[in-house]
Amino acid sequence: MATDTQIRIGVMGCAEIARKVSRAIHLAPNATIVAVASRSLEKAKSFASSNGYPESTKIHGSYESILEDPEVDALYVPLPTSLHVEWAIRAAEKGKHILLEKPVAMNVAEFDKIVAACEANGVQIMDGTMWVHNPRTAKLKEFLSDSDRFGQLKTVQSCFSFAGDEDFLKNDIRVKPGLDGLGALGDAGWYTIRATLLANNFELPKTVTAFTGAVLNESGVILSCGASLSWEDGRTATIYCSFLANLTMEIIAIGTKGTLKVHDFIIPFKETEASFTTSTKSWFNELVTEWVNPPSENTVKTELPQEACMVREFARLVGEIKNNGAKPDGFWPSISRKTQLVVDAVKESIDKNYEQISLSGR
Amino acid sequence: MATDTQIRIGVMGCAEIARKVSRAIHLAPNATIVAVASRSLEKAKSFASSNGYPESTKIHGSYESILEDPEVDALYVPLPTSLHVEWAIRAAEKGKHILLEKPVAMNVAEFDKIVAACEANGVQIMDGTMWVHNPRTAKLKEFLSDSDRFGQLKTVQSCFSFAGDEDFLKNDIRVKPGLDGLGALGDAGWYTIRATLLANNFELPKTVTAFTGAVLNESGVILSCGASLSWEDGRTATIYCSFLANLTMEIIAIGTKGTLKVHDFIIPFKETEASFTTSTKSWFNELVTEWVNPPSENTVKTELPQEACMVREFARLVGEIKNNGAKPDGFWPSISRKTQLVVDAVKESIDKNYEQISLSGR
Repeated sequence: MATDTQIRIGVMGCAEIARKVSRAIHLAPNATIVAVASRSLEKAKSFASSNGYPESTKIHGSYESILEDPEVDALYVPLPTSLHVEWAIRAAEKGKHILLEKPVAMNVAEFDKIVAACEANGVQIMDGTMWVHNPRTAKLKEFLSDSDRFGQLKTVQSCFSFAGDEDFLKNDIRVKPGLDGLGALGDAGWYTIRATLLANNFELPKTVTAFTGAVLNESGVILSCGASLSWEDGRTATIYCSFLANLTMEIIAIGTKGTLKVHDFIIPFKETEASFTTSTKSWFNELVTEWVNPPSENTVKTELPQEACMVREFARLVGEIKNNGAKPDGFWPSISRKTQLVVDAVKESIDKNYEQISLSGR
Repeated sequence: MATDTQIRIGVMGCAEIARKVSRAIHLAPNATIVAVASRSLEKAKSFASSNGYPESTKIHGSYESILEDPEVDALYVPLPTSLHVEWAIRAAEKGKHILLEKPVAMNVAEFDKIVAACEANGVQIMDGTMWVHNPRTAKLKEFLSDSDRFGQLKTVQSCFSFAGDEDFLKNDIRVKPGLDGLGALGDAGWYTIRATLLANNFELPKTVTAFTGAVLNESGVILSCGASLSWEDGRTATIYCSFLANLTMEIIAIGTKGTLKVHDFIIPFKETEASFTTSTKSWFNELVTEWVNPPSENTVKTELPQEACMVREFARLVGEIKNNGAKPDGFWPSISRKTQLVVDAVKESIDKNYEQISLSGR
């Protein structure tokens, strides 16, 4: 049951991912689900009951209808990417705060329109990248910022692959040009780009060059690709994303003094804890037959699932606006935009036969 | 003391790495050190005594002299890379088998001359890449070849970096254009390229493209670089090597069904055992909050250090030739050549402003 201090969230679309985020909204102490919408009343009703929504939840049979619901402070929007620009703008215009699934748009021009609508209407927008809200991520950043233990970043390599089955590769919205048309790059690649930017304090690279050998389906949707990124001062990065290879998700960040490794950065192996590996000033013994200062593991307990931490942070920002007259926080949309910019650049490089793309001035 | 079944090895040059390989020759059951050479008799004498060489070891004050030593079956050659072409050819012409430090040459044209001399004189050549002789490596190959557990290779990413100190970056032969002039690429990069080729059953990539952002010193020697590689069928790889970042060495190979990870592939954390991580058909639980089939660790005991396994294998092949009239084994020079070809291609790509280099027909 909603309390006065809880942000009232409507769920706009009954995608698979909305099941997990619905649970997260239930778990977040400062948020509650008050409404759900689908294009059919039946589907919304069935989704609500199979996901344990409270009896009081309002069921909407259209997206338009939930936008008009005065009881809804904010919307969680898991619609296909190609629909984001329309529905996020309409939500903002109705004064609804927006938790928007990633990728945030088909390209940065679309996202800029969404952000403009949010700014004009004073609403918060945040994308649905869950892992950055895991308490582990703050610890990763702490290590990466430590001049004694990590030093200056030199390179960061990240990858996310999973093996879509035959049905996925034929029917999932992520392989359909008109739906989540950015394919593996917009889905899996989004996370690797976010990790890369996070390790670089959200400084955009100077250039982005896709690796030769990207795999596209017959509709031209990317199923697998990679890219190298480089910064003015010699920092480099690589990303790799694929729907065609066994589930793997890694970050390796190497600094002048230390190394960080994460083997499960997007979805931790276990929900209740998350680990990462660090090493500092690693070297060899005298005869170079063993390591001195080898990597060691660090574990962080996670009392709330990372997606509930995400909802809690979103609801906190909305609460500040709603109850305390604060302004929307610009950090979250700014990193969504940068992530989208790099997604766009990788795609542009692939479209231009693996040409090097400059991000200067973007 | 040498026995009849032991291959008599001469150490040609007293480089730092020769200390470790001298110990390996002592440990290998089928090899023994019978001679050592340096450009000065004093240096050779002092090296022999500080490395526990037997009293009977012949001390040579020149490289010419050890070539003439009739008691020497084979030479271990840790000379700077730029000297390999001269001294390996002269050794072959004297009928000496050759264990040659990597990189094998300054370029593949030089190496082809060395191989031609070895073939003309019926001598074995093998390069000094120790890690491939670790018993763990056979286990890695077993996993990579397993169609049920690993499936088809999709990508392999490897890196090797270490942080050279001020003295290293100023004075080490690996940063001098006239000595080991291939810098981090010929040294650290060699291993990553070998790992990449090994995972690809030694099939050469179709193209090699260096990452923008390679770091060169004022003499033009590579201190840090990376590259992407791609094969006809969509397989890809990346390598990264650096003298400027904390010690890190990784292989991540991702197949359609499985993933292999090695965190210490060149020098294992401990000499007495070596580990690697495998996973097969990894997926998520129903709500995508935890993993199903997460990675698990495998450990291989190593009774002999990997460099002693290398010497043992080299001596075994030499013994087959010397005692049983066998022909030199062509596998080892063939993978040295392929590794060198990729080294050359990465360097060529950097020299040509990160152009894509085709390996077709090389």
